[in-house]
Amino acid sequence: MKKKVVIVGGVAGGASAAARLRRLDEEAEIILIERGGYISYANCGLPYYIGDVITDRDNLFVQTPHGLRARYNIEVRTRHEVLKIDRQQKMVEVKELVSGRVYQETYDFLLLSPGATPIRPKIPGLEGDNVFTLRDVADTDRIKTYLRHEQPQRALVVGAGFIGLEIAENLVAAGLKVSLVEMASRVLPKNLDPEMAAPLHNHLRARGVNLYLQTALSAVEQRDGQDWALLGNGEEIPYDLVVIAVGTRPETHLAKEAGLELGTNGAIRVNASFQTSDPSIYAVGDAIEVESGITGDKTYLPLAGPANRQGRLAADAICGRPVKYEGVIGTAIVKVFDLTAGSVGFTEEFLKHSGQKYLTAITHPLSHAGYYPGATHLDIKLLFTPEGRILGAQVVGAHNVDKTLDVIATVMKTGGTVDDLAALELAYAPPFSSAKNPVNIAGYVAGNIIRGDLPVASWDQILDQENPDFLLLDVRSKSQFAAGALEGALHIPLAELRQRLHELPRDKEIIVYCTIGLTSYLATRILIQNGFKARNLSGGWQTLKPILDDRRATAAQKNR
Amino acid sequence: MKKKVVIVGGVAGGASAAARLRRLDEEAEIILIERGGYISYANCGLPYYIGDVITDRDNLFVQTPHGLRARYNIEVRTRHEVLKIDRQQKMVEVKELVSGRVYQETYDFLLLSPGATPIRPKIPGLEGDNVFTLRDVADTDRIKTYLRHEQPQRALVVGAGFIGLEIAENLVAAGLKVSLVEMASRVLPKNLDPEMAAPLHNHLRARGVNLYLQTALSAVEQRDGQDWALLGNGEEIPYDLVVIAVGTRPETHLAKEAGLELGTNGAIRVNASFQTSDPSIYAVGDAIEVESGITGDKTYLPLAGPANRQGRLAADAICGRPVKYEGVIGTAIVKVFDLTAGSVGFTEEFLKHSGQKYLTAITHPLSHAGYYPGATHLDIKLLFTPEGRILGAQVVGAHNVDKTLDVIATVMKTGGTVDDLAALELAYAPPFSSAKNPVNIAGYVAGNIIRGDLPVASWDQILDQENPDFLLLDVRSKSQFAAGALEGALHIPLAELRQRLHELPRDKEIIVYCTIGLTSYLATRILIQNGFKARNLSGGWQTLKPILDDRRATAAQKNR
Ligand SMILES: Cc1cc2nc3c(=O)[nH]c(=O)nc-3n(C[C@H](O)[C@H](O)[C@H](O)COP(=O)(O)OP(=O)(O)OC[C@H]3O[C@@H](n4cnc5c(N)ncnc54)[C@H](O)[C@@H]3O)c2cc1C
Ligand SMILES: Cc1cc2nc3c(=O)[nH]c(=O)nc-3n(C[C@H](O)[C@H](O)[C@H](O)COP(=O)(O)OP(=O)(O)OC[C@H]3O[C@@H](n4cnc5c(N)ncnc54)[C@H](O)[C@@H]3O)c2cc1C
Ligand SMILES: CC(C)(COP(=O)(O)OP(=O)(O)OC[C@H]1O[C@@H](n2cnc3c(N)ncnc32)[C@H](O)[C@@H]1OP(=O)(O)O)[C@@H](O)C(=O)NCCC(=O)NCCS
Ligand SMILES: CC(C)(COP(=O)(O)OP(=O)(O)OC[C@H]1O[C@@H](n2cnc3c(N)ncnc32)[C@H](O)[C@@H]1OP(=O)(O)O)[C@@H](O)C(=O)NCCC(=O)NCCS
Repeated sequence: MKKKVVIVGGVAGGASAAARLRRLDEEAEIILIERGGYISYANCGLPYYIGDVITDRDNLFVQTPHGLRARYNIEVRTRHEVLKIDRQQKMVEVKELVSGRVYQETYDFLLLSPGATPIRPKIPGLEGDNVFTLRDVADTDRIKTYLRHEQPQRALVVGAGFIGLEIAENLVAAGLKVSLVEMASRVLPKNLDPEMAAPLHNHLRARGVNLYLQTALSAVEQRDGQDWALLGNGEEIPYDLVVIAVGTRPETHLAKEAGLELGTNGAIRVNASFQTSDPSIYAVGDAIEVESGITGDKTYLPLAGPANRQGRLAADAICGRPVKYEGVIGTAIVKVFDLTAGSVGFTEEFLKHSGQKYLTAITHPLSHAGYYPGATHLDIKLLFTPEGRILGAQVVGAHNVDKTLDVIATVMKTGGTVDDLAALELAYAPPFSSAKNPVNIAGYVAGNIIRGDLPVASWDQILDQENPDFLLLDVRSKSQFAAGALEGALHIPLAELRQRLHELPRDKEIIVYCTIGLTSYLATRILIQNGFKARNLSGGWQTLKPILDDRRATAAQKNR
Repeated sequence: MKKKVVIVGGVAGGASAAARLRRLDEEAEIILIERGGYISYANCGLPYYIGDVITDRDNLFVQTPHGLRARYNIEVRTRHEVLKIDRQQKMVEVKELVSGRVYQETYDFLLLSPGATPIRPKIPGLEGDNVFTLRDVADTDRIKTYLRHEQPQRALVVGAGFIGLEIAENLVAAGLKVSLVEMASRVLPKNLDPEMAAPLHNHLRARGVNLYLQTALSAVEQRDGQDWALLGNGEEIPYDLVVIAVGTRPETHLAKEAGLELGTNGAIRVNASFQTSDPSIYAVGDAIEVESGITGDKTYLPLAGPANRQGRLAADAICGRPVKYEGVIGTAIVKVFDLTAGSVGFTEEFLKHSGQKYLTAITHPLSHAGYYPGATHLDIKLLFTPEGRILGAQVVGAHNVDKTLDVIATVMKTGGTVDDLAALELAYAPPFSSAKNPVNIAGYVAGNIIRGDLPVASWDQILDQENPDFLLLDVRSKSQFAAGALEGALHIPLAELRQRLHELPRDKEIIVYCTIGLTSYLATRILIQNGFKARNLSGGWQTLKPILDDRRATAAQKNR
């Protein structure tokens, strides 16, 4: 018997499911219903179209209704909105938006991929035709038209998550002066810990973005024809256009009204084959709750990779194939001007709150062999259990961030350990990597920490210590020390350390630091084996300096 | 008791072992003996110094004897050669090359990391001061000096393995006209199958390299002050300088004379903790035999990543730490002008000969989202067992080859399957990847092949068929078909296929092709589900075209 599948939402999850369904079942009747004017658009490309990085609007459409019809024999209905699900009758109520006509459509299987909606915080005065969110093509067209016709000079971006950062960058590219306001103490607060976000703060400022961290947008006002944003810190900034990017919430009113079980964040609850609490109704993408592949906990992860894959798997399930989704580990990445930042798994902040025992390792290897031109350093933070299982990773840098992150994510996907990272045999030639790949190095350092070969201190155990009960030892070269060092640090270059051990206290802990943590690791080894109590400052000066620079910039901003 | 470790060879394996030994044991006496004038040099950077890509010679030295002494308290003896091992006395005989003095040095542990020697084939006439191999700094200096003083115009490079290709590229960069002669039918014959090497052939020619494949260098002659290479095909080419890069053989005369057990390729046999047949003697790097992490078979893999890691592990073992080397999977990569080529595991050629059952999948995904500027296509070939275990992969392209390869290698390292590739959750934002990552796509396609959803034909089942018993069906667009298609192919664009099924034979197998294999996959699905016998041409026109171009160029060369 020919099955009839109705799909709600024609983009990442919905269109992928439709395509896969057709490949598996040439007979099925497949109806794709999309509220908006377009299907298969590149949500993720929208910010770059605003910045004119993507210049041709047509490029935003990976597929067209015509293409899906011709190639896939899928009935595509754009500007049709599904209003209601009648589970008893296995029927949806659909409104043809252009005509206003409402009709019923029966289904054997219903697949929901309605995505998510940008959160619009209630901020007094925040309305008008220069207030935007960015989710779909219509939003993009609106912003683009506003830029073209109104030629705004000053933009306010609210929220420094992935999308907020992309919008900020692209508004700068479009020639605007951008202020970025974020309530948390840092950008990408759910993905990066403070020391990993600091380099991004400095880079954003260097690229002309006014960064307001730990700052709420409390209200907006119009005075003399100018819009003003009133910030929580009392400051007022003028703006011509504002984009709100403070997160999304799953679009689940259909599911809710139909009585489907909901979960985390109000997202639709599904089983491992994407079946909702109604066995004829499947759901995927930004609208659903997912399981953490690390802990098994329920969570929410609105990203395109998972949405695409879930769409494919739901189609498999609808066609009766065995499907068991493994959950998500949360791999995500974003370009921030000339830097890239990415993360997978949990942050330290999250782990601290969760009570899970963890260790961290920070390394700064070069993106490829130092002797081959163009290498830049990576900042890598690894989080792992005391037994070595990887819980999370954060990577920031100018090159090879994506590669480093993907390799770690691949190991995490199988529940791998830091020793697995150390053992990887990765592609090496000078333009691409180092004989000891950055991922190997991260694994080595983490393994050393676990095995007690390398006791470590973290940046926050060094900075802001009123009465430090440890001695700071700087083992860098004379010139490096002279160029900037920690207050009160004793300076003994590594090469002299073995001869000058008598200068060091035996009754006090010594925290050793250098540029990236390698020279100080050698020093720590020497000290420990000579009976001193020593720890290595994780990530060294390269971790500290961006934090100090960031603080300085913040202080300067406050004193303005 | 303080242990005394003597290390033979001061570069990748030796220096890494020395450094790790010191970190683990501040007390040990560590003597590093190096025949050449330098330690810790970047062998892998040498070609790029010749091409002036690396401009500062000092950059070739990752560490200096002084640095190792000062930072690591390691006794470094350059220009000292170990002549003999006296296993009974646990003593080596060393010659100080500058003075000629010979002395004995005792050891508790001896670590051999003497590397390998370039093979110098016996070719009549091949000698003189313009004949080079490239292994170490002295070789490099010789070539560099010759280039500077003699200003040669025409170079001959013999051997198109990794090093041969790098040398060819860098001699072009140095302004020479380069002929590259390779005995096998393709470049990188041990790493790439023919269809994966073809794009490199075309690219090398486009960059001005004279490529002589399936061609032996039979002799060289001097006539009227000009050197001529006589090729197996009868051709004669003039040259001013020749670099031989036909492979290396492990440097094992010390080990052999000492009666240590040897294995594959005459390399030193070691156990999983790098112990030779003499428990006090360890060996690592290009001198040793290793185990395949895929099959467990003995093999030989002279690469820097493994050498570095083995050095570290041997140091661990010497310090009494448990070590169990997992063997190698053979991940390797090379830049070839604007392309990159890499491989891991086994080639199809190898698998065919080994009798192992295997399947292949060829895909050509974009390096990142097509709508974001700068995306280029990747050529990915995956080899796997009928059950899905990955046996090998080859990747060629302009961008993200290293990332794609590393992710696959990471999955292979744990014995993973093509379904594991499909399930990976990799970092996606438009500048970096696609929502369906190239690795996911490769996994999907391979999975479809395994499950029988996608019967495939390979390029060699299409080309060179005298009396094909199949129908070729081209499902690309009209314009694509017009721009170049396979002789005798029937053309039905995918969008018309469902309506024109009656034009197709039911008694004959249909092999469908398109640009990359995706549209034809859809067509194959339609055909199969309508009762036709159909297969999809793996990789489509994008796989065929480079092969056809390559053949055309070869034919033109022959007719010259
Ligand atoms: C600006 C931006 C940038 C992004 N960048 C990235 C990135 O770099 N990397 C990444 O991984 N992810 C990114 N994402 C997230 C990614 O786009 C989503 O995770 C993905 O699109 C989710 O797919 P989906 O099918 O669940 O929802 P969507 O792709 O949003 O599709 C849902 C569709 O359903 C339609 N719909 C909803 N309700 C109804 C109804 N009742 N009737 C009919 N139609 C309905 C909507 O109109 C919408 O078109 C980005 C998102 C945005 C907005
Ligand atoms: C031009 C070139 C490019 C390369 N590119 C790459 C690449 O891109 N990627 C990659 O993975 N690998 C590459 N390699 C291979 C890589 O360099 C080797 O795998 C690695 O150096 C092996 O390390 P090893 O310690 O075993 O030997 P080596 O690094 O060769 O060191 C051995 C040392 O031992 C010394 N020695 C030998 N015998 C004695 C003795 N009796 N007494 C004292 N000293 C002795 C030698 O002089 C030599 O310096 C390249 C090699 C070359 C030559
Ligand atoms: C355009 C769209 C409908 C395509 O869906 P799709 O057909 O599943 O995806 P692709 O075009 O990447 O094709 C993938 C399929 O082709 C197959 N394929 C890819 N390359 C192939 C090749 N060389 N040979 C054979 N098969 C190939 C894959 O196996 C897969 O098929 P399967 O799922 O049956 O295994 C859908 O992805 C979409 O709407 N995307 C845009 C929206 C979006 O994702 N937005 C968020 C990110 S910006
Ligand atoms: C230079 C050379 C002696 C260095 O050896 P090495 O000290 O083992 O290697 P590195 O300098 O990369 O340092 C790695 C060590 O530092 C540690 N480390 C690296 N970054 C660190 C950080 N940020 N914090 C703490 N420790 C760190 C690693 O854990 C590792 O120590 P371990 O092995 O005890 O775990 C050796 O690699 C060499 O001679 N290389 C050149 C030759 C060569 O490899 N040629 C072939 C390729 S061109």
